[in-house]
Amino acid sequence: MNRMLIVGGTGETGSWFARYFKRRGFRVTVWGPSGKREVAEEMGVGYAEDLIREVKESDVVLLSVPIDRTAEVIEELGPNMKIGSLLMDVASLKSEPMRAMLEHAPGDVEVLGTHPMFGPTMKGIGGQTMILVPAKGRCEMWLPIMRTLFQEDGARVEIVGPEEHDQIMAVVQALTHFAYISIGATLKTLDFDVAGSRSFMSPVYEIMIDFVGRILAQNPELYANIQENPRARRVRDTYIKECISLAEMTDHGDREGFVKVMKDAAEHFQAREEALMRSDRLIEMKIKDKDEQRPDVGGRDRGDYTADATRRDVDGSERGRF
Amino acid sequence: MNRMLIVGGTGETGSWFARYFKRRGFRVTVWGPSGKREVAEEMGVGYAEDLIREVKESDVVLLSVPIDRTAEVIEELGPNMKIGSLLMDVASLKSEPMRAMLEHAPGDVEVLGTHPMFGPTMKGIGGQTMILVPAKGRCEMWLPIMRTLFQEDGARVEIVGPEEHDQIMAVVQALTHFAYISIGATLKTLDFDVAGSRSFMSPVYEIMIDFVGRILAQNPELYANIQENPRARRVRDTYIKECISLAEMTDHGDREGFVKVMKDAAEHFQAREEALMRSDRLIEMKIKDKDEQRPDVGGRDRGDYTADATRRDVDGSERGRF
Repeated sequence: MNRMLIVGGTGETGSWFARYFKRRGFRVTVWGPSGKREVAEEMGVGYAEDLIREVKESDVVLLSVPIDRTAEVIEELGPNMKIGSLLMDVASLKSEPMRAMLEHAPGDVEVLGTHPMFGPTMKGIGGQTMILVPAKGRCEMWLPIMRTLFQEDGARVEIVGPEEHDQIMAVVQALTHFAYISIGATLKTLDFDVAGSRSFMSPVYEIMIDFVGRILAQNPELYANIQENPRARRVRDTYIKECISLAEMTDHGDREGFVKVMKDAAEHFQAREEALMRSDRLIEMKIKDKDEQRPDVGGRDRGDYTADATRRDVDGSERGRF
Repeated sequence: MNRMLIVGGTGETGSWFARYFKRRGFRVTVWGPSGKREVAEEMGVGYAEDLIREVKESDVVLLSVPIDRTAEVIEELGPNMKIGSLLMDVASLKSEPMRAMLEHAPGDVEVLGTHPMFGPTMKGIGGQTMILVPAKGRCEMWLPIMRTLFQEDGARVEIVGPEEHDQIMAVVQALTHFAYISIGATLKTLDFDVAGSRSFMSPVYEIMIDFVGRILAQNPELYANIQENPRARRVRDTYIKECISLAEMTDHGDREGFVKVMKDAAEHFQAREEALMRSDRLIEMKIKDKDEQRPDVGGRDRGDYTADATRRDVDGSERGRF
């Protein structure tokens, strides 16, 4: 039976993985900086009284620690790992942790970065995305084991290099959050009545504003970490430049320029009709769900919805041929 | 039977209203600049051969013309309207059209601005939002008639003043679109592989990117109109300032500042938990819908989804207590 040590295993994510790997047949031991032995007991796994000794005896060491602590933990524990064992992490960035793991773990220790694209509140892994970043030439034995394990449980496993990972996340996570958090800050600065605006909502705005609220409801430190992706800076700067340029065009009545920006972006985006269909479908589900939840609201035309019928983000008045 | 003239009534929105009001018992006549009599014939309504004469004889004149043509049309037609008749428009902005209607229609003509928050592709009006902007002291007779009519068909009717309307739309429509269009432009400038990024998506990103694609799929002129709302300029400028400030904080490692921005925005936003619940539910519906559409994909854990399980926008690794 493989022995796994989870460093930070009494935390939310760490204990999620402790339960997961225990279910999958590993003999799991956890360790946490605040020494919460009761968390280990609850889960029915061991607690590492002597951290370094446990590292020396483990087949897999999984690091589930805040990203700003990752490097120092690797530096301390890495050199103690045994021949043929595996060092893993679960941080949302990959370049820096991979560099540190490759540097501080002995050459005969394998290295596998992971980025689970889901939070520790989920029950199963089915349908979720698990990104794996295996060290080149240093993950021959363990990559197939871990990949098969996650896939057997229904996860979508994606394999990429550390730089490519961080580049993609600079857009997928950092830019998305950045735009939404800035909208939240704008609503505050304008002292905009968010609750009051719900009466005038289009579904596009309604969904957008709920995602702004969703992000603002969570721990700001997590979002700060994601922005600190070194590759996110260029993405943010580009976004700000595009915002300024688009605003200037509108301010100066340069309609031609505005239209060109949209057309060029549309051409680059490509699968727009699919996006339109998917968002139509999402809006449709949302309206239907609302109707079902509030049977007292609405009128006799309710049955008339079609996917097309929900495209109400743009007021239609300008569509006339006048 | 009330006679209604729809100027621009051969266009998409205009003909939607022609059909709607015909069904609701009006004797509808349309007119369009390109003289498409066949559209009127198809709908079984009249076509105004002599536009000015028709204006003089109509009980309601509804303008469904591009916003940049609205003022000149009002100037030309308004003075010809008969005593006790109603002048309506359906533009996405309200201050300017209201000002023009009040100026050019005789004092004994009533004035009602409207902004249907839906496009002309919808079949029914049930569950949709119809914003009404009645002229103060000049809509006593017609406001109750129109309001009752829309409400009877299940629409949510909201009544506001023209300035308040444009102020709200500067956020609800203009800011939302502005942020999304700028993201589209950023993806193009970065030459980001949108299709390829789908493999690494979180649901938050997936939904966001579909709304970007949705907007890029539509007519840029319509989005230019909405940005030309005079009150949108301050909103865009504020947004850009917030973006720059947030980016600078991150660039300079000012984590405290970043966290404060998020916390202040969160406090202003208020109903965050509700937003979190609603977005959880939306994500849940999306995942379930995907599963149903692709029965071949996924694994044995599929039944494990809960609302909480789908909060995968933020990677969970930093949630540990290490």
